[in-house]
Amino acid sequence: MTELPKAVRIVEVGPRDGLQNETRILPLEKKLEFIRLLAEAGLKDIEVASFVHPKWIPQLADADALIPRLPKILGVRYSALVPNMKGLERALQAGIPRIAVFTAASETFNRKNINMGVAESIDVFRPVVARALQEGLSVRGYISTCFVCPFEGAIRKERVAGVTRELFELGVDEVSVGDTIGAATPADVENTVGYLLESFPASRLAMHFHDTYGMAIANVFASLRLGLSTFDSSAGGIGGCPYAPGASGNVATEKLLYLFERLGIATGVSVQHLRQAAQYINTELRAA
Amino acid sequence: MTELPKAVRIVEVGPRDGLQNETRILPLEKKLEFIRLLAEAGLKDIEVASFVHPKWIPQLADADALIPRLPKILGVRYSALVPNMKGLERALQAGIPRIAVFTAASETFNRKNINMGVAESIDVFRPVVARALQEGLSVRGYISTCFVCPFEGAIRKERVAGVTRELFELGVDEVSVGDTIGAATPADVENTVGYLLESFPASRLAMHFHDTYGMAIANVFASLRLGLSTFDSSAGGIGGCPYAPGASGNVATEKLLYLFERLGIATGVSVQHLRQAAQYINTELRAA
Repeated sequence: MTELPKAVRIVEVGPRDGLQNETRILPLEKKLEFIRLLAEAGLKDIEVASFVHPKWIPQLADADALIPRLPKILGVRYSALVPNMKGLERALQAGIPRIAVFTAASETFNRKNINMGVAESIDVFRPVVARALQEGLSVRGYISTCFVCPFEGAIRKERVAGVTRELFELGVDEVSVGDTIGAATPADVENTVGYLLESFPASRLAMHFHDTYGMAIANVFASLRLGLSTFDSSAGGIGGCPYAPGASGNVATEKLLYLFERLGIATGVSVQHLRQAAQYINTELRAA
Repeated sequence: MTELPKAVRIVEVGPRDGLQNETRILPLEKKLEFIRLLAEAGLKDIEVASFVHPKWIPQLADADALIPRLPKILGVRYSALVPNMKGLERALQAGIPRIAVFTAASETFNRKNINMGVAESIDVFRPVVARALQEGLSVRGYISTCFVCPFEGAIRKERVAGVTRELFELGVDEVSVGDTIGAATPADVENTVGYLLESFPASRLAMHFHDTYGMAIANVFASLRLGLSTFDSSAGGIGGCPYAPGASGNVATEKLLYLFERLGIATGVSVQHLRQAAQYINTELRAA
């Protein structure tokens, strides 16, 4: 158990992870307004799109049109999900400075999610990451189901560490450790993340929690205690699974901000402005 | 930091703390059905009523009629809030085996809440607790605003310890340490509760969290880590402040159960049955 960090970095994933899990498809102009509000709140890392085929994620089909129109704000870095070389070509064409590749700790989840085994997905991403780096982009890696898989149950920490290592070996600069179904407890975080920290520095790991069972803030605090300082979240907590009414999506950025502010941890984000972004997106998504 | 406890006790306060903060007044028969579902789920401590004057809490005006009709279930202990000797007379008449008295750690909050200073309220409760014990009742004590007061801000831990001591000196067998506005963080819990444990055994303290800013489960976990094993909650998380739409009330009993079950901590409560009680009350409170 270390001292709490003095500052944290929040990676806002609402426009991507949030919107892709909402039934309603937001028009391009409203996405731009949402992103503008997020950037104005002081968020520096914003994941705005996905180049997964529109057939799979119609909510984000407008990535190519969206990216060239993003508000240019000093210090704000936008990123987009890239599933393969085809997606990277689109990302380069659109002009995004950072991409993210994604796999899972659970073999079964990865097959159901992206129709590939974990090892196979790493092989697919190897040339993608190499090419992206060559083109001057930076690359983040995501690992889904790092604690509990809906199909396999509890996930072994050694498995998570193995996939983390493989992603770093591809050349990603950060690995986001995901509790995809929001099932982890702080004890799980202490166990798995504590183990990861034996091999990887805290500064290169991000925690990605969903709030399905209300555990997210407890898990964030457990991560802070371990020395982690990068957290993914969505303004408004958007992204509840459309098939489970009332189920929560990503941990809400405003909940993170409340915790950090009360703990005296700097975020660089304005609570008041962020709340406006959260209200905007929740109104747009819930309006009849 | 101690080992996590092997078992916890949940004090269900939904029929009292939950319902008193809902705008809708539930008819007596529906309260009885709610309480029956809670008891059948396995909850052994259920706070069902308040003898505060109905003028102040019309939602609970039917305490005298409710208590004699409570389902008699072996091992289930019902309790009710008692504000003064008049309230105790009603409680004795109705036949409740356990009462609760209540004060605050914040002087300003107590004056606004019950129109008395903290010392004065202790004086009012002294003969009430003495008489209750004489009549064979057991008594719990509540302290509101133990971490943050909406009027005074941060509350000093020494203040909380002082009020806790005074309540134990009155003869209460348990003190419930409340985060009334749901503003505490796990760091606050470590600080204040850690300090209380220098003077009082964990077995005689209960933690009472509200989930206003989503901190409740993180605070429960921090308390568990300190060795606490009694937690107040409301099925369905009912009790959101009627003046703050969307604000959460007590931490939801089902969230507690999720956490404890995943941590392998015994509760004696059936998750499935509790969920039925939560659904019942939320349907009754939200129905048009």
